[in-house]
Amino acid sequence: MLKVGVILLSGGLDSTTVAAYAKNRGHQLTGITLHYGQTHSKEVDAAMKVASSLELKHQVVDISFFKQLAWYSALTNPELFEIPSKRGAEDMAQDIPITYVPLRNTFFLTIAAAFLESEALSYIERDGVAPDKVEASIFIAANAIDYSGYPDCRPEYYEEMRRALFMGSKLGSQYGTPIKIETPLITMTKAEIVRLALVEKAPIESTWSCYQGGDRPCGECDSCILRAKGFREAEVDDPSLSRKAR
Amino acid sequence: MLKVGVILLSGGLDSTTVAAYAKNRGHQLTGITLHYGQTHSKEVDAAMKVASSLELKHQVVDISFFKQLAWYSALTNPELFEIPSKRGAEDMAQDIPITYVPLRNTFFLTIAAAFLESEALSYIERDGVAPDKVEASIFIAANAIDYSGYPDCRPEYYEEMRRALFMGSKLGSQYGTPIKIETPLITMTKAEIVRLALVEKAPIESTWSCYQGGDRPCGECDSCILRAKGFREAEVDDPSLSRKAR
Repeated sequence: MLKVGVILLSGGLDSTTVAAYAKNRGHQLTGITLHYGQTHSKEVDAAMKVASSLELKHQVVDISFFKQLAWYSALTNPELFEIPSKRGAEDMAQDIPITYVPLRNTFFLTIAAAFLESEALSYIERDGVAPDKVEASIFIAANAIDYSGYPDCRPEYYEEMRRALFMGSKLGSQYGTPIKIETPLITMTKAEIVRLALVEKAPIESTWSCYQGGDRPCGECDSCILRAKGFREAEVDDPSLSRKAR
Repeated sequence: MLKVGVILLSGGLDSTTVAAYAKNRGHQLTGITLHYGQTHSKEVDAAMKVASSLELKHQVVDISFFKQLAWYSALTNPELFEIPSKRGAEDMAQDIPITYVPLRNTFFLTIAAAFLESEALSYIERDGVAPDKVEASIFIAANAIDYSGYPDCRPEYYEEMRRALFMGSKLGSQYGTPIKIETPLITMTKAEIVRLALVEKAPIESTWSCYQGGDRPCGECDSCILRAKGFREAEVDDPSLSRKAR
């Protein structure tokens, strides 16, 4: 079986763990790093180190334009969300967080799928590999625990996307080869992810989770706090915090 | 009912007809024109004229990066397809054409949906419009007749995409407001599209269908030929060919 894979690689702990997981299962893997043209590029630097360390092919793509389109989000337009909403605070309790970016994961998966389908079709049509000998998988570090409430982090959403990608692709509709979406972390806690990272020998010393662009992780943002909690609960030191590793 | 709409507007006859159709049905409509950073931009110029003539809000987005990702196609990489494939010509007879671009319509719809969801969420959350009073529709000039064989021009594909967009969005999963995908041309012949364009008073004099970038349509490319056939069968003169109109 020829296993062709794409990992959506942000450079953080989670996607790096999934990259190692996929690589260890024999996937011929390309990392795709999508970034919004950030002024600091700590995440992109980290993704490049991870890709190099795992010997992945790697594509880095600037998708800044997406911010103008998916504009209604506290992530893409923080200033908009400082003004109180017309709806009462009690209505908002059960809501999807304002950091939800409209259709973000659908957009990311579609980009990954377009590249993956291109690779798979080239193996089938140009190299003569039988379609039933090709396995095509997108790996995404989606997590329904830390991102509970996000509609595009739920398993049932991934089921629908699998069907849409099957129907909308030549790979699916002509060759019957599905575009799989693999979400190995979907129900894991951060501590479980840390343990998996160790088992898979993921290059976590190269990862970057902090929302700030400093020389070292700030230790105070939500992402740093969540990461620290994961390592603490897994009873492991975070190698990215040792002076040597950086 | 507040009808919010997005039309994927290429500047050609078909999408211009759909834009007029949607506008005439009371949709508050934004045109989104996606282009690959072409050296000539006849289509983009045409889309801008059409948007102005129909008084649409308009976003023009350069998606050149998509060519590197969806690389296995005679449209994004013509030189690759000059080399004969390893599969026999008789195998290819029933195939999806080599001009199929991997996941193109999924990518286009997702971009349109991200903008549309942003608009709809802002009406609901910031302006206090009730979710069941908001109708959100993407209009796309997909056609299963001229593009027979393309997996992403079939009605059954659009059904799957509707479900994925519902499940993957806050608009769908929190507010129960679907992201509709409207394909009014899906089963029409080119002559029927020409007749609809006239009924809807679409600004067809501003459209551009030719694959070449000349001052006037070449009259010889597949797109010019298909368009001319449509006007001939509808027994109508093409106003884009009159010297006055240009």
